[in-house]
Amino acid sequence: MSSTTPTKTAHFTPPDWRTIVEAHARISPHIHRTPVLTSKSVDAMVGARVFFKCENLQKTGSFKIRGAANAIFSLSDQEIAHGIVTQSSGNHGAAVACAAAWRGVPAWIVMPDNSSAVKRLAIEGYGGRVTLCEPTMTSRNEASNRIQSETGALLIHPYDDDRVIAGQATVAKEFLEEIGDLDAVFAPVSGGGLLSGTCLGAKGIRPAVRVFGCEPAQADDAFRSLQTGTLQAQDSSNTIADGLRASLSPRTFAILREQVDRILRVTEEEIISATRLIWERMKIVVEPSSAVAIAPLLKEGVVAGLNLPARADGGKPKLGVIFSGGNVDLSALPF
Amino acid sequence: MSSTTPTKTAHFTPPDWRTIVEAHARISPHIHRTPVLTSKSVDAMVGARVFFKCENLQKTGSFKIRGAANAIFSLSDQEIAHGIVTQSSGNHGAAVACAAAWRGVPAWIVMPDNSSAVKRLAIEGYGGRVTLCEPTMTSRNEASNRIQSETGALLIHPYDDDRVIAGQATVAKEFLEEIGDLDAVFAPVSGGGLLSGTCLGAKGIRPAVRVFGCEPAQADDAFRSLQTGTLQAQDSSNTIADGLRASLSPRTFAILREQVDRILRVTEEEIISATRLIWERMKIVVEPSSAVAIAPLLKEGVVAGLNLPARADGGKPKLGVIFSGGNVDLSALPF
Repeated sequence: MSSTTPTKTAHFTPPDWRTIVEAHARISPHIHRTPVLTSKSVDAMVGARVFFKCENLQKTGSFKIRGAANAIFSLSDQEIAHGIVTQSSGNHGAAVACAAAWRGVPAWIVMPDNSSAVKRLAIEGYGGRVTLCEPTMTSRNEASNRIQSETGALLIHPYDDDRVIAGQATVAKEFLEEIGDLDAVFAPVSGGGLLSGTCLGAKGIRPAVRVFGCEPAQADDAFRSLQTGTLQAQDSSNTIADGLRASLSPRTFAILREQVDRILRVTEEEIISATRLIWERMKIVVEPSSAVAIAPLLKEGVVAGLNLPARADGGKPKLGVIFSGGNVDLSALPF
Repeated sequence: MSSTTPTKTAHFTPPDWRTIVEAHARISPHIHRTPVLTSKSVDAMVGARVFFKCENLQKTGSFKIRGAANAIFSLSDQEIAHGIVTQSSGNHGAAVACAAAWRGVPAWIVMPDNSSAVKRLAIEGYGGRVTLCEPTMTSRNEASNRIQSETGALLIHPYDDDRVIAGQATVAKEFLEEIGDLDAVFAPVSGGGLLSGTCLGAKGIRPAVRVFGCEPAQADDAFRSLQTGTLQAQDSSNTIADGLRASLSPRTFAILREQVDRILRVTEEEIISATRLIWERMKIVVEPSSAVAIAPLLKEGVVAGLNLPARADGGKPKLGVIFSGGNVDLSALPF
């Protein structure tokens, strides 16, 4: 979607704390305050006290509703009068469709014509108007531009947008409000909306908290971007973590360069095994993209290698893991 | 297990409110206070406001830990010195193994030798000592009696036990403490420990609340027992709701005769379809036995047929559904 969003190379000022607090107040009446769950058996495997913020139990099945709702409810009646358009066959598409319906305006969702029927039904279930296109960037942009010019609908980018980032920051804000003394927070990274929001939301409450991004090794553009100091594109990837195939944007990259502690990478096998473990032990449906955030902690020596400072209470580290979503096709499970 | 428990035909005095409050205080340090979840899409399908008490997210993956822990922590050091024995290849077995480990005593779990490897591993994972026997009642009782006489271990019945019933009553107690104005509560019924506890726990807080039991039509002994006024045995059943194959006991039957409003029955197809719906829409893993409690509400006209009194607030009925557990074999899903 970069061709439809002006790409600035200038510095960005990330949303400040007041903006995040306002975002939270704006979206709270509409969303779930998702539960924080724990599992003794996972604690034993990780060698730490692990807390899971369950955005898979969020409305529309993912955290994406937070950013979409904040953006859509931030707009004036005039700005939003002609509806919203976005390009996403996944969780952002469902979130935009749902939040637009709450606001009472139409949402056009441009989806590639090879998207699964399940995803299309979900988006239509939230009232989204699906426009199919060929599965190429050119075709998507054409469809999206055509809808904008024909209808006057506004485009909401899935992450290169301060209102979206401020909305996603409310996940970590709630998390730290509930578990105030986390030593570190782990979130998956794709375009970086959730991870940059997690840095802002978590460090806004507890400046000393460490924030780690977790990424499939097969789609490690965030790792490469931070290592090289230059925004790296994600070439096509077939990682099973289908929510993590996008690339960082100028805005999210700028925040992550300043604030994220490190990116941890995991293999496809580790993602599948972690997904199954969470279903079996925690009895919740997480999508593989969510399991990416716990997968690194299940590997021998990784937690010790984070060099977290010793706790004042002398106890094991308290780690917060964000499960980003739970939208899977039960007819096509990887196990 | 009736041959090892004296079967009284006399009247039973169910656990009183003070006993339930004490049970709750006794087990609260060990168990999760499970979340209550909601789903707008389920609300729309049912035509009511539905609240789900998620004991699938409980320790050991089911509510059974409440009754087992209450029984095991009620015993004196002398009474429990030689450990615990029980016959269960399922959730009660895992719960007894876990609670005995917390108490620091051994637990022998008698399982038929055709039990799944997954269940055996779960019980052994909690520290249970598995004794395999032939899959007949005679062989089970022999194995159980032999362990009792050799070790001095105490038998804990899965439901014909006031301490167990008082423990299970804490599910509804927590539920009504959180959602105080429920019009009705729905729980699955098998041996009746959860359902009789639900009557006591829910009506103890809100006497006007209706309580409905939900049962597979293929294993409808509770329905038949209440209809005939005589305790009916459950002949062998192959319902997919593998937690609901037991029969009521004298003690649970006595409570249900007094307190339950009605038993609602569902087909196997309705159970499978409800299970999948909950996984897909609510992103939680419930076992088919749990889905039995929501399945009746998804049928046309059933909620209207309950004739619930109109609410003072003029709104749609507020219904509470208890999800009893989430232990499934992911390698053998029915969909």
